[in-house]
Amino acid sequence: MPKGLIPHSIDAAQKDYAVERNGVRYSGVHLIIDLYGANRLNEIAFIENTMRQCVAKAGATLLHIHLHPFEPNGVSGVAVLAESHISVHTWPEDNYAAFDVFMCGDTRPEVCADILKTAFQAERIEVTELLRGKGMKA
Amino acid sequence: MPKGLIPHSIDAAQKDYAVERNGVRYSGVHLIIDLYGANRLNEIAFIENTMRQCVAKAGATLLHIHLHPFEPNGVSGVAVLAESHISVHTWPEDNYAAFDVFMCGDTRPEVCADILKTAFQAERIEVTELLRGKGMKA
Repeated sequence: MPKGLIPHSIDAAQKDYAVERNGVRYSGVHLIIDLYGANRLNEIAFIENTMRQCVAKAGATLLHIHLHPFEPNGVSGVAVLAESHISVHTWPEDNYAAFDVFMCGDTRPEVCADILKTAFQAERIEVTELLRGKGMKA
Repeated sequence: MPKGLIPHSIDAAQKDYAVERNGVRYSGVHLIIDLYGANRLNEIAFIENTMRQCVAKAGATLLHIHLHPFEPNGVSGVAVLAESHISVHTWPEDNYAAFDVFMCGDTRPEVCADILKTAFQAERIEVTELLRGKGMKA
């Protein structure tokens, strides 16, 4: 799990738990990941497999996944997790993809950035970390 | 559409188009919406209906919607749109919900904030606007 990130609960039966960082309680870590100069952004099966790899490597649990191909270009997809979600929207004509990785609890969302950068051969990646639900009451 | 937001294309056949603001091209507008002191966060049918209302009022097109109930509390859901997605994760025990509204093209994502605040009787709402894919090549 990310350094300094402590699961609010490790009760396996509790599928939607919060996290704490530096003593402040949050609902989860939301990574906003933008890939530029990326490839294979119209390959729906490859995109789904890469999302499934992110879920597995992050130690998350996949509940539901759905990807939609657009004509002439582009894919949108969402993976609903026990720990929140991963989403993707691609603009192959621009070699750009917008991913979100939102996870709570005892997971490693940060591993997804390298998996995505490598899989889609991105020239540049921008990752913004949002801590959602700061100070939500215990 | 939001003031200053110009669709990159109004070609109805192009389901995944970019937007421009102040002459800079973006993939879309991503609203990070946190509801605090909110209610009805365990009512899955009400949550789905509210998400569908957001899609309709924003002028977006629903392609797929899936919501998952957690035990003992909480709902996660995603709506895949022709214009990107809406996601929700709720922590009813904390009266907290995390929504994302990511839309591109000729839509009105900003209307969703008031719809969500009113529907879930939130005491406080925090809305952060992210412009995704800044400067992606045309």
